[in-house]
Amino acid sequence: MRVVKGMRDFPPEVMILRKKIFEKVEKIFQKFGFDPIETPVVEYWETLAGKYGEEAENKLIYKFYDELSKEMLALRYDLTVPLARFIALNKGIVLPFKRYHIGRVYRHENPQKGRYREFWQCDADIVGSPYPEADAEIIDLFREIMLSFGFSDFVIRLNDRRILAAIFEKGLGIKDPLPVYRIIDRLDKVGWGEVERSLRVLLPIDKVEKLKAILTTSKENFEVLWEVEQEFDAKEGAKHLQEVLEIAGEKFVRVDLSLVRGLDYYTGPIFEIFVKEPRIGALAGGGRYDKLIGLYSGIDLPATGGSLGVERLIDAGLAIGLFKLDKLTYTQVFVASIEADDYARKVAKKLRDAGFNVQIDVMRRPWRKQIEYARKKKIPVIVIVGKKEKQSKTAVVLHEKGRIEVTLDQLEEELKRFISG
Amino acid sequence: MRVVKGMRDFPPEVMILRKKIFEKVEKIFQKFGFDPIETPVVEYWETLAGKYGEEAENKLIYKFYDELSKEMLALRYDLTVPLARFIALNKGIVLPFKRYHIGRVYRHENPQKGRYREFWQCDADIVGSPYPEADAEIIDLFREIMLSFGFSDFVIRLNDRRILAAIFEKGLGIKDPLPVYRIIDRLDKVGWGEVERSLRVLLPIDKVEKLKAILTTSKENFEVLWEVEQEFDAKEGAKHLQEVLEIAGEKFVRVDLSLVRGLDYYTGPIFEIFVKEPRIGALAGGGRYDKLIGLYSGIDLPATGGSLGVERLIDAGLAIGLFKLDKLTYTQVFVASIEADDYARKVAKKLRDAGFNVQIDVMRRPWRKQIEYARKKKIPVIVIVGKKEKQSKTAVVLHEKGRIEVTLDQLEEELKRFISG
Repeated sequence: MRVVKGMRDFPPEVMILRKKIFEKVEKIFQKFGFDPIETPVVEYWETLAGKYGEEAENKLIYKFYDELSKEMLALRYDLTVPLARFIALNKGIVLPFKRYHIGRVYRHENPQKGRYREFWQCDADIVGSPYPEADAEIIDLFREIMLSFGFSDFVIRLNDRRILAAIFEKGLGIKDPLPVYRIIDRLDKVGWGEVERSLRVLLPIDKVEKLKAILTTSKENFEVLWEVEQEFDAKEGAKHLQEVLEIAGEKFVRVDLSLVRGLDYYTGPIFEIFVKEPRIGALAGGGRYDKLIGLYSGIDLPATGGSLGVERLIDAGLAIGLFKLDKLTYTQVFVASIEADDYARKVAKKLRDAGFNVQIDVMRRPWRKQIEYARKKKIPVIVIVGKKEKQSKTAVVLHEKGRIEVTLDQLEEELKRFISG
Repeated sequence: MRVVKGMRDFPPEVMILRKKIFEKVEKIFQKFGFDPIETPVVEYWETLAGKYGEEAENKLIYKFYDELSKEMLALRYDLTVPLARFIALNKGIVLPFKRYHIGRVYRHENPQKGRYREFWQCDADIVGSPYPEADAEIIDLFREIMLSFGFSDFVIRLNDRRILAAIFEKGLGIKDPLPVYRIIDRLDKVGWGEVERSLRVLLPIDKVEKLKAILTTSKENFEVLWEVEQEFDAKEGAKHLQEVLEIAGEKFVRVDLSLVRGLDYYTGPIFEIFVKEPRIGALAGGGRYDKLIGLYSGIDLPATGGSLGVERLIDAGLAIGLFKLDKLTYTQVFVASIEADDYARKVAKKLRDAGFNVQIDVMRRPWRKQIEYARKKKIPVIVIVGKKEKQSKTAVVLHEKGRIEVTLDQLEEELKRFISG
């Protein structure tokens, strides 16, 4: 009996860390004025078809014929397309619609470290605004998330699909740049040598050389934008990014013309966040997609957003010591019983009513075995009661700071001291 | 473009209520010493096959052939079978293993009010203990959840599969009682008349009459248990339930011999929770399944648990006024700008840094339109700033209690007063 390949079970110690991370992300989403929605994991195949590009469509999306309903279904591939469908189905929605969505998505990738077939994304999107204010808020939001987890050595790469279009179409005379985007998108994974070889299949050598010079410039943000505006007539994209930078500020942000993003639906600013160490792929990414909602509703509605890849965030945070898998249980108190089960249950109930997370023996074990269990689970406080304690209405409290005997009335106060300290 | 039939999108106002409910359930699970796990939504079909009975297997489980991996997959049908698989794959796990799991499951039912094809369950289970202490803790836990939501008119029906087996096998001479269980399981939905007609196809009329008399007794809990022990030699089950009742107490609990539960895997105590109003199906249910884990690992491991059906809990709570869908957003403050966008952004940042959930215009709207938006979203506090406020480092605060002008330094304190009040 196995877990499905590329998917994972999460035991309590992993879940306790994951929940802490999700809660933190969620709090920041809320701080920036985003509200939650949820959509089904299952979508009709036609909802997903034609949105992500050829590779996703043919090799990565889980699609299947459902015998019971006689329909083609699919597991969601990201949280953006479900949002677009949601918006199209809720015509009267108040704009701007700022939503966050934390949920699992499915991609039939080859499983490897940091890459799974079922994984979680944390998305925040603003629907309704075509302005740089919205893109800037998304940048600000994801930067805030990185900082709040203690990451200090990261870069937010920023580009604009309209700048890319100008460079490729006007500058290099390439009519359909999507295949070239896909090659350049692999730059981080495979390096320039490999990208160059792939590009030469599609482009003459002088164009490849020119492209390399453009994409790998090391100039300052505003200078790069000024240059592409002049040289490639990329006014719209360059102006837009300038405003984004003015509003969001340049901290951690670098305009990077080699950033393309793999997905087909982007139309404006795009970004990705990388940490210097460890060297894994983007921890977050996103961009503007002003035409996607129109594919469903027939009426274009501007939208921009970003997505945090939780698995990589966790891997990166564990690697550099920001996160720890050291908590095995939420339980704060174990009430051990020396042949006084009814009294132990009474004590446990009293503590639960006072808000403590409490376990009590359900295995009919001798008290030493109960304590052994509590220690294995790293439960911070053990309360021991027996016939003597029952009679005197007291309890013995064991904690790494020591062992004390208290009356039942004092117990809560004593535990608060131990557990908050 | 549609949502998949029987599945649902949840807009923010619904999510805000659902999250509040999930958080409350989760807190109580933790209070009783349960810790979270997560498992994939997708399982191999062979993991689910043969666990739930014929109807589920052929008509309700979403199973499909995955073209990419060339394997039969399925969407999980409940959270109990994934737990059993999880336990079998984690042999060295510390016992008792008390886990909770809140997640979506899939059943290809005919969609109707309160019944969906994708819905959420909140499960808590204790693995490792064969003792009534564990069953009693599950009863206690789910009773606590009902009470914590403010339900006061509910009943926890309690029975034991061994008592049922004794009645059917020893008392009525029925060799394979599963088909009869399934008929009786529909009692709540269809009433005795219909159940009687179905039973007569399988049993002679005198046995049907005898069964009716047994299953509809109105005697006291301990008396019922004493009788079945005497009359049907149901010693094991009756003794076990007696102990459960002694430990958990009889509050809200009623021994009900007509309770069978639909699923095949139960082996001991079983329970279901019903509210008197509104008349919908069970809000929660569960039981002991000492043989299920052994199907995966080859070694039986006793286990007992329960599952809360969130959709029905919400429907019931909304119907009797315990829950309300009145909160449209988590946002606490909208900062409206009268031609002073940079100052408005500065104020918004300051408030976000202080922990408030804040929105600011991203639509380049005039300030009156900004306020209109904030009111539509029912954001409780509006802060207005313009050139004048920028110059004097002040802000105007609008709240249903009134309108005041404050300095930037006072702003946080003032808002705390408004928002907590």
